[in-house]
Amino acid sequence: MGTHFIVTGCAGFIGSTLVDRLIGQGHTITGIDNFCTGQRRFIECALKNPLFHLIEDDVLNLPGLTRHFQGGDCVVHLAANADVRFGLEHPGKDIEQNTIATFNVLEAMRANGIRRIAFASSGSVYGEATIIPTPETAPFPVQTSLYGASKVAGEGLIAAYCEGFGFRSWIFRFVSILGERYTHGHVFDFYRYLRQDPTTLRVLGDGSQRKSYLYVQDCIDAILLAINKAEDKVNIFNLGVDSYINVNDSIGWITQAMGVNPRLNFTGGDRGWTGDSPFIFLATEKIQRLGWKPKLSIREGIIRTVEYFKANEWVLEARKIC
Amino acid sequence: MGTHFIVTGCAGFIGSTLVDRLIGQGHTITGIDNFCTGQRRFIECALKNPLFHLIEDDVLNLPGLTRHFQGGDCVVHLAANADVRFGLEHPGKDIEQNTIATFNVLEAMRANGIRRIAFASSGSVYGEATIIPTPETAPFPVQTSLYGASKVAGEGLIAAYCEGFGFRSWIFRFVSILGERYTHGHVFDFYRYLRQDPTTLRVLGDGSQRKSYLYVQDCIDAILLAINKAEDKVNIFNLGVDSYINVNDSIGWITQAMGVNPRLNFTGGDRGWTGDSPFIFLATEKIQRLGWKPKLSIREGIIRTVEYFKANEWVLEARKIC
Repeated sequence: MGTHFIVTGCAGFIGSTLVDRLIGQGHTITGIDNFCTGQRRFIECALKNPLFHLIEDDVLNLPGLTRHFQGGDCVVHLAANADVRFGLEHPGKDIEQNTIATFNVLEAMRANGIRRIAFASSGSVYGEATIIPTPETAPFPVQTSLYGASKVAGEGLIAAYCEGFGFRSWIFRFVSILGERYTHGHVFDFYRYLRQDPTTLRVLGDGSQRKSYLYVQDCIDAILLAINKAEDKVNIFNLGVDSYINVNDSIGWITQAMGVNPRLNFTGGDRGWTGDSPFIFLATEKIQRLGWKPKLSIREGIIRTVEYFKANEWVLEARKIC
Repeated sequence: MGTHFIVTGCAGFIGSTLVDRLIGQGHTITGIDNFCTGQRRFIECALKNPLFHLIEDDVLNLPGLTRHFQGGDCVVHLAANADVRFGLEHPGKDIEQNTIATFNVLEAMRANGIRRIAFASSGSVYGEATIIPTPETAPFPVQTSLYGASKVAGEGLIAAYCEGFGFRSWIFRFVSILGERYTHGHVFDFYRYLRQDPTTLRVLGDGSQRKSYLYVQDCIDAILLAINKAEDKVNIFNLGVDSYINVNDSIGWITQAMGVNPRLNFTGGDRGWTGDSPFIFLATEKIQRLGWKPKLSIREGIIRTVEYFKANEWVLEARKIC
């Protein structure tokens, strides 16, 4: 018999991909999304399957969540403000949508006796890491972004609930995730700019920022494996590939896959924006010891993403509505 | 010319002691307190001094804070739910009073162009530390209490504001603080129980829990020194003494100072309550390198506290009203 998963952010990039995988494994899913960034088209297939039940609501609505979580066995909390770059323009958004929302999820779990939670955190919780590749046990970081701060706060709340209320958790610190249904970030931005004007590309920073990426299906593999195999009270895993690229590499692969040859305008400086870490590269030995290995390289993930855009150009116009 | 300090929690144990010190140094102080745990009698003298201006309000009132902060140079944010032990009985309280309140303080600062903040964090952010004495750069901790989680969230927000908005911060991770005006914690509880019944004392845990304490004036010395001397963007300091005691030592000193000899009833187990760390002992080399040394030992601090209770028994009846 399958597990009854509750997936917040079920219509998002990672959420909808997870929902499809969970359906394939015969699990029951209650999916919650406010369709702020989530896309109905991502869950078109899921909606046709009786294993999937969609609830349109906001995770900031605690009484609602408490009703929706009824009967669940395990929560995968993916709903978040993933808009890392613009934290400074609306400082309350990260704390509300990432920290308070996580608190609401924990309270709704407690009210329903649900004790298992998987949480999408971020490699940005390491701030400007002093050890690279950065392990889960890196020195106590100093936060450099509201996004990272709001995620580290979410992690802390979850761990405290594990200690205090007997919950078990799986916390994943992602590098950037790429692949089908990817709807924000630099590959998205570059593709969209180049569709409008294939002759020029404006690049934040100097192009030397080093980044690591992970393909979404590899990410889902790791999440599902960890939930099944990792049995500590609080299980924290970095997720990423064993290599990194710089923005210039990525531009090369994107333009090649698109068949364009733009002139590059660099805005300069060693980072894209204030609080942007010039280098996120995570040590992933811990998740690998569970038997996980990513199947796609960064290059393959980027090309797969560009191919997806070519076949689904509607996604380029899909706007964040709140 | 003095600095205009804004002190939140100005009528609390540490806050009122700081206010008296700042007045002594000729600074202007706007003190904010909701008198939930703060005591009017702690600021009786301060209120007679024109350098001190009291505002009775709650740090959860952001529009109010924004008005009150006008003209300030530096905020010392001490208002908090310090009721570590009962986090599990009202999980929203720590996040509200420690995390959201800190966010409000930061927003009120930003609105007023104030860019310096000192923050009372806690050694409990290290969870169950794997390195003891625990340095500021200990491995990324797993939170074990809602209090610790709410403080680490506050730290993260402050650091993100430093990076994003050009703030400078001094974050202090305290061991337990003792001394005059101390109004909660085990010395307070023990003294009160023994006043009622000097023949018996109920002790949470098995008495072996090791703890470190710091005398409040030594704590204030460190805060003022750091604000003056530490010039990084984010300055994080552990505050504590170079030694620790166990609960049994402390019982011995308290009972001796009170002249009583109770039978001890231990509740058993290696910790006082769920989420209690059995051993908090912080490495303080970093603050010592600035030239700070505590003047009182733990034993002297405890005896000083008991003497204060003897001379101010009213404080034993001073109740938390919210």
